[in-house]
Amino acid sequence: MNPLDRMFAPQSVAIIGATESADKIGGKALRTLIQHGYAGNVHPVNPSHAEIAGIRCYASIGEVPGPVDLAIISVPAQRVPGVLQACADAGVKGAVILSSGFNEAGTQGKALQQQLQDICQRTGIRVSGPNAEGFYNIGANLAATFNSAIDIGKGDLNAPSQIGIVSQSGGLGFAFFNKGRRDDLVFSHIFSVGNQVDLELADYTAWLLEQERTRVVMLYAESFNHPSRFLAVARRAADLRKPLVMVKVGNSDAGRRAAQSHTGALASPSSVVDAALAQHGVVRADDQDMLLNLAAAFAHQPLPRGNRVGMVCVSGGTATWLADACSAAGLEVPELDAERRAQIAKHIPDFGASNNPVDVTAQASDGFTVALDVVGGAPNIDAVILGVNFAGERRLLKEGPAIAEWMRRVGKPVLVYSYALPGDKSREILRELGLHVFTSLQGCVRSLRALVDYADFQRTRAERQAPARTPDDMPRAARGLLDAPRKVLCEYEAKALLAAYGVPLPDEVLARTAEEAVAHAQRLGFPVALKIQSPQIAHKTEARGVQLDLANADAVRAAFRAVTAGAAAHDAQAEIHGVLVQKMARPGRELIAGIINNSAYGPMVMVGLGGIYTEVLDDTAIAPAPLTHATARDMLQRLRGYRLLTGVRGEAPRDVDAVADLLVRLSHLAWDAREVLAEFDVNPVFVHAAGAGVTVVDALAVKVN
Amino acid sequence: MNPLDRMFAPQSVAIIGATESADKIGGKALRTLIQHGYAGNVHPVNPSHAEIAGIRCYASIGEVPGPVDLAIISVPAQRVPGVLQACADAGVKGAVILSSGFNEAGTQGKALQQQLQDICQRTGIRVSGPNAEGFYNIGANLAATFNSAIDIGKGDLNAPSQIGIVSQSGGLGFAFFNKGRRDDLVFSHIFSVGNQVDLELADYTAWLLEQERTRVVMLYAESFNHPSRFLAVARRAADLRKPLVMVKVGNSDAGRRAAQSHTGALASPSSVVDAALAQHGVVRADDQDMLLNLAAAFAHQPLPRGNRVGMVCVSGGTATWLADACSAAGLEVPELDAERRAQIAKHIPDFGASNNPVDVTAQASDGFTVALDVVGGAPNIDAVILGVNFAGERRLLKEGPAIAEWMRRVGKPVLVYSYALPGDKSREILRELGLHVFTSLQGCVRSLRALVDYADFQRTRAERQAPARTPDDMPRAARGLLDAPRKVLCEYEAKALLAAYGVPLPDEVLARTAEEAVAHAQRLGFPVALKIQSPQIAHKTEARGVQLDLANADAVRAAFRAVTAGAAAHDAQAEIHGVLVQKMARPGRELIAGIINNSAYGPMVMVGLGGIYTEVLDDTAIAPAPLTHATARDMLQRLRGYRLLTGVRGEAPRDVDAVADLLVRLSHLAWDAREVLAEFDVNPVFVHAAGAGVTVVDALAVKVN
Repeated sequence: MNPLDRMFAPQSVAIIGATESADKIGGKALRTLIQHGYAGNVHPVNPSHAEIAGIRCYASIGEVPGPVDLAIISVPAQRVPGVLQACADAGVKGAVILSSGFNEAGTQGKALQQQLQDICQRTGIRVSGPNAEGFYNIGANLAATFNSAIDIGKGDLNAPSQIGIVSQSGGLGFAFFNKGRRDDLVFSHIFSVGNQVDLELADYTAWLLEQERTRVVMLYAESFNHPSRFLAVARRAADLRKPLVMVKVGNSDAGRRAAQSHTGALASPSSVVDAALAQHGVVRADDQDMLLNLAAAFAHQPLPRGNRVGMVCVSGGTATWLADACSAAGLEVPELDAERRAQIAKHIPDFGASNNPVDVTAQASDGFTVALDVVGGAPNIDAVILGVNFAGERRLLKEGPAIAEWMRRVGKPVLVYSYALPGDKSREILRELGLHVFTSLQGCVRSLRALVDYADFQRTRAERQAPARTPDDMPRAARGLLDAPRKVLCEYEAKALLAAYGVPLPDEVLARTAEEAVAHAQRLGFPVALKIQSPQIAHKTEARGVQLDLANADAVRAAFRAVTAGAAAHDAQAEIHGVLVQKMARPGRELIAGIINNSAYGPMVMVGLGGIYTEVLDDTAIAPAPLTHATARDMLQRLRGYRLLTGVRGEAPRDVDAVADLLVRLSHLAWDAREVLAEFDVNPVFVHAAGAGVTVVDALAVKVN
Repeated sequence: MNPLDRMFAPQSVAIIGATESADKIGGKALRTLIQHGYAGNVHPVNPSHAEIAGIRCYASIGEVPGPVDLAIISVPAQRVPGVLQACADAGVKGAVILSSGFNEAGTQGKALQQQLQDICQRTGIRVSGPNAEGFYNIGANLAATFNSAIDIGKGDLNAPSQIGIVSQSGGLGFAFFNKGRRDDLVFSHIFSVGNQVDLELADYTAWLLEQERTRVVMLYAESFNHPSRFLAVARRAADLRKPLVMVKVGNSDAGRRAAQSHTGALASPSSVVDAALAQHGVVRADDQDMLLNLAAAFAHQPLPRGNRVGMVCVSGGTATWLADACSAAGLEVPELDAERRAQIAKHIPDFGASNNPVDVTAQASDGFTVALDVVGGAPNIDAVILGVNFAGERRLLKEGPAIAEWMRRVGKPVLVYSYALPGDKSREILRELGLHVFTSLQGCVRSLRALVDYADFQRTRAERQAPARTPDDMPRAARGLLDAPRKVLCEYEAKALLAAYGVPLPDEVLARTAEEAVAHAQRLGFPVALKIQSPQIAHKTEARGVQLDLANADAVRAAFRAVTAGAAAHDAQAEIHGVLVQKMARPGRELIAGIINNSAYGPMVMVGLGGIYTEVLDDTAIAPAPLTHATARDMLQRLRGYRLLTGVRGEAPRDVDAVADLLVRLSHLAWDAREVLAEFDVNPVFVHAAGAGVTVVDALAVKVN
């Protein structure tokens, strides 16, 4: 049994700070608990009353008879630490603290929250909040909240596929529930996490994932206290095939400013957060309505085998619009074969359309149900959208049962979109049939796209799962290089690190004198490049430390003098390790790659279209280390300019395998050296024709302080 | 008086095909007309009845006494031409034909529709439909339709700012109304256009624009019968500052397939349609909900002076989320000055946020109204979003009147977003206050963005209005070149066309012999390029007809032989005009430009990032000719790679003026030669540093057949 079960599904509840007045939070919470039908023991605690709402009231938690599983605390902030300690002393399993006045309220509040944290750590009592709006375990009739948005009704508690809510904003979390209930979605729980002094987003989510009827968890998050804990929960969700659908805010400067003043937390860069969440298939939304649409789709639909959509519509306009929206969302709208078209054509008026998207018209008699079977059975269709008008109940009465029955046996996702809002009578029929209807066209289409993406995520998860690496996996040579007592490793050292990880590198040598440089150049073959090597000179070109296209020995001699003079002029104190002599690289498509090491989210690998275009177009992809080849290839495919690698205008395709291999090896370095490396840039990389590999032209490593 | 006034706001209406049965369209239409309170004369026409619904029924339209302004026709398709002719004979002004069975229904239907068209042309009777769901003039209580979606109620008919609907899908048009009414939007008219045998989208829109209370027109369009007519109406809308908000479908292959089987019309490429509509400020949406949000915003808000948004919220989560969404939509969220922050801070709890986005918290007493004044009055704020919770009516009762009053005097757009759905009581109060509330966060934010864009469109419209060109504006030299009796004008001729339009071109000469080529090269200075010139060889490189970087006379001689031999090998019949001798172009940033001449939408100019990136990234902009410098500059700024022209990594900025000048001159050619030129490509263009101009490296013109 999960230790939180007693707290979230308690046998007995104490309300500390309960009052008669429904205007006060303590009074409101008591009434809410009772009105929502909680069947366990309820104990008001308030020294000024002997009885509240007809229930015996106790002066302190210590006086309450029998074990108490959950205390709901609503007393002024400064009294909360004392009350919480008393709860712990009385053996209460968990407390939800509705009171405000903690981390969100200046220095004094912060001190009070610290006291709560100390009590939790000392006594082991679990705390939800403070500054929370509480929670609602719907199946248990337990409403530990004062938010009245739950008064809208529960729905069918036996529904096999329910939605859980975890929200860092109480107002929003309960609003999601309220809005979802108006569309007859069925929820299992709502948790408002408040200031997360003890239990945090990850804990609620983890608990919800183990509840049988909770099939989807909806999340609103501003920041994660412990990203790695949340990511572990996200991994567990993926294991259980229970999608997390999430709004994550605080991505813009203004948003971070607001989130910080709201939660005091500094958000990580959104590209890093996005990559970390994507790794575990977390589904993202940017709007409350889209969040609800996504949750509904995942709660009610099987996963599709592919992205090919069939449509059966009662109006040509809706068919056209849906087809456009599907195409724009990257879904395919294949044509039906001639036989299937003929089958449909027999049952619809001649002004309908028998090809996909099918328009049976508003006048078809049995055309609609025939088209369902034909389209649903087509082997080139992975999912079906029905474009209907359920404003009136006439057609719904006629076709609804057939649709519901067909949906159960077709084994493919079937999303129903009604372009007109269902009337009250229609709603009732839909409820009886257990039929969810989308009323937003884009909500419907984007939800289907999310189903396709999530199915793809699950299908390819195994090949994206990199084998765990141990400290022994770090090559000895790499360890030596990383131990160097310097913050910056210059090009020849950074390249040696790559070489230790098996990245093929051009033959290049560090020269200490001009004559050494000439000798190396003669061995390598002209033309060559010379580059100054100094840990103090990260940007060699700016220090006039690079000379390219040197065609003979004299040019190399002159260049050696020039780059050493340039370096000296740039920084007289710079420690010069020598001059790197390289054969001029074969030309190739330019890429950049690198390591981003975020302390909260761990090491990640970045790749982008190289050269000036990286800067202008910001066409980059990020994924957490270590990578597999499949993930590396995926990152490349996510680049807008990916076609530059596959061959444009009759060019030969480039060596995508070699790039993927470079990224995988870089990711091993990123992971193994995650406590040492702050940044690692491989810039530029020239990508040659397929089979001809890549040339790492330059590299730079910066260690953590 | 507009000739359509009598038809759309009639004094008397005949219903031809009226029946007793409410199950039949003719019966439904009669009942709908009566139930919605039409106060004029109603005359059922049906030879089998003496009376229907207690009203005297006539055997034919000819027997109806007095003038009839509008006939509603609902008889089987094959009888419609006869009935329409009888209406025309009886002097009926206009008819709405609800019957189906015309262009949408095979060969026979098409013949019937042709008959209708002939009658319209012969008699001048105006027709709406056929295959239409009719129209609804709400202020006149005239419901000439059988669609029951209008039964939801009319709203406040005295509202000064109402929304008109024109829809190419009857079902969708009436659904927009129904959905909008649930949000208390006030509509003036709905028109379902049907098969548009006579009146088309443009006509209804034009008429609506002249109705005083119609401030915004919402459109659903699949294709335009006569794009130029619609564009003229869009221009009129811009003159009147009445926005058109539009969903235009049929953009994808599958969508076009559906639209074609639905309306029989072939859609133009969406990039061309988009550019034509954008020229007149048409606001676009891709979703029914977004369409309604946009219409609401334009109906209720003044236009903002800029894109700087202030937010006043009652929850930190909503503040963060709104700030994120505004930033993502390209709106600025500036900080407030210290004085304003201090003013707000005095009136909100210390766990609120006094900086923009302002979080007054749910507990602020007068904080909310204080913040409104302070934020609304800030000089660096152009528009305000209020993030509230109007589920319950408590705060609305308290603050609603102040908000409504403040909105009237602040003179800036104020969009109200409630994160929880307003309850019934709240709805009632909002109606009384005349306060529109967005319930979609993205709907609210994107609507504000649309207001900002539309304001910008109106502000800069004059400088985008190119002066009209007359046939005399075409340079004589251009006329001569275009008269050449050949489909393809090769590079030297296309460049001569550009030169005639004042585009500066490099000094280059056509050589007929190798020695002529050498002489030209010596005059121009080495290195030079040689390019074969033949109208049969559009792709010179493929025909081995190009030689670059020729450093001396011998190289030129050899190259001359090589390109003529290459051309002969490629196409022995090719007519060779000579070999173009050019000085090698100075390097520069590569662009392409061109003319796209769509027969329905007229000539347009295209510009894109050059080279391989055009193909991979599809980074192009299109605008209708002729352009002004302002529009040309705008096109460049719309390119994702625009920064490549303004100077990246410390590079000097490029000559954007020269590019804009090239585009303007190209647009003059496009316009003047719109009946002659099918295509014109300028590819590549090298853009040099600011002040150093551009080099047109190659050009090609293709004339219409």
